[in-house]
Amino acid sequence: MEFTRLASRNHEQVKEYCKLANSPKARRESGRFVLEGLRLCADCADSGYPIETLFLTDEAFQKGGARLERLLAGARKVYLVEPAVAEKLSDTVSPQGVFCVVQKRAESACLQRTDGKYILLDCVQNPQNLGAIARTAEALGIDALVLFSGCDPYNPKALRASMGALLRLPVLETDDLAAAVTHFGETMPTFATVPDPTAQPITAQDFSHGAAVVIGNEANGVSDKVLAAVQRRVTIPMRGSAESLNAAAAATVTMWEMMK
Amino acid sequence: MEFTRLASRNHEQVKEYCKLANSPKARRESGRFVLEGLRLCADCADSGYPIETLFLTDEAFQKGGARLERLLAGARKVYLVEPAVAEKLSDTVSPQGVFCVVQKRAESACLQRTDGKYILLDCVQNPQNLGAIARTAEALGIDALVLFSGCDPYNPKALRASMGALLRLPVLETDDLAAAVTHFGETMPTFATVPDPTAQPITAQDFSHGAAVVIGNEANGVSDKVLAAVQRRVTIPMRGSAESLNAAAAATVTMWEMMK
Repeated sequence: MEFTRLASRNHEQVKEYCKLANSPKARRESGRFVLEGLRLCADCADSGYPIETLFLTDEAFQKGGARLERLLAGARKVYLVEPAVAEKLSDTVSPQGVFCVVQKRAESACLQRTDGKYILLDCVQNPQNLGAIARTAEALGIDALVLFSGCDPYNPKALRASMGALLRLPVLETDDLAAAVTHFGETMPTFATVPDPTAQPITAQDFSHGAAVVIGNEANGVSDKVLAAVQRRVTIPMRGSAESLNAAAAATVTMWEMMK
Repeated sequence: MEFTRLASRNHEQVKEYCKLANSPKARRESGRFVLEGLRLCADCADSGYPIETLFLTDEAFQKGGARLERLLAGARKVYLVEPAVAEKLSDTVSPQGVFCVVQKRAESACLQRTDGKYILLDCVQNPQNLGAIARTAEALGIDALVLFSGCDPYNPKALRASMGALLRLPVLETDDLAAAVTHFGETMPTFATVPDPTAQPITAQDFSHGAAVVIGNEANGVSDKVLAAVQRRVTIPMRGSAESLNAAAAATVTMWEMMK
């Protein structure tokens, strides 16, 4: 294991980390992403992702522990960084002093089971929502997520909000969500959730033979093109006075009804 | 209507606003809170809260519109602020230039209906979670929220995440949640949600004759004292591999099952 001291906030590796943290384009083009926090970094190593670069403060290194041991064992290169550098790398108020650069894995082909349960997200914009949806999907046993334009599963805020679920769940990205819906529709029923009280209630659907369900963008819902591709529009009946559930809450109710 | 120009970031009213934004103690002692954003401020005025002070940038004032008219009509004092002042007041990346200081209302006694549906939060810490839970509670038709220690319904982040639901829903704060549970238990069944797979599944409960359900803190769940006070412990059955749903997702599933 090679340890290198790093004291400059302008070091090339620091700039590279910040670029990957802030730019979806940089993540896409380089095939790499970043993580912050001991638990998330160790979970990622445990899931078999190659840890290219690990940054640790002296404090985090000295604290040690089993998680750090596993993380160090999987890291190709380790930098011991000054607190000022950790502050620059960090996206949080109280940095733990653990950061890594990780290589994406080759996307595995989605093994579509005819009785599987799939969630397709149509341009969910907010990384907190994306992360929350992934965490709930994993907890409830959804088989895979399919993401469309604007949903970046490697966004640092989304990864953190998902508690690493985005690294453990099968996640596919697509450029053509309507085509993906049509593909799913060949072997299972396809649905879109809409805030339209005249649509069929989600409580009256049969999800037991597999289902692919599209959840829409926070502001605009599911696009017309995708709505035209699904077999059925369903809605979450509401008694209250608010305009609608937020995207993460609507997704939670939808997945709960799919998996019950 | 009195308009006053305000150009100093150190003006007494600006300091007062920031204090109310950042300090639960200041909010409690003064009986006032702050809001940011045209929609949230106008919703608040519409709900009958007295707008003590309104801060507007020239840009926001010139933009006008029906919401701003209503807001101006309800404001006792209006300051036209420079962009640098708005930046100091703002808690967001893209400030809209609309801010207000609002007086809390006297807490109305909670009209406890024997067939009502009540959610009690045991120290939910994260204001985003509190706001999300309130928004979902309003959407699904929960009758009231009861908040215990650490849940401040006037936290600016919670108010924003709730889309104003915290100002529209009946919200009670209590210093003794176990006593509140016992009180509810005299007229309706009381429940606590626990991440214990041996507890009774939430899907097997009868909520049709009223229910008071306690949802726990993100890290520690429901306290022992409150668990001892509820009549029944219930759990959300999960198929997946994650440790648990987050607090907002667990609350969403709980409220959905209560209101179906």
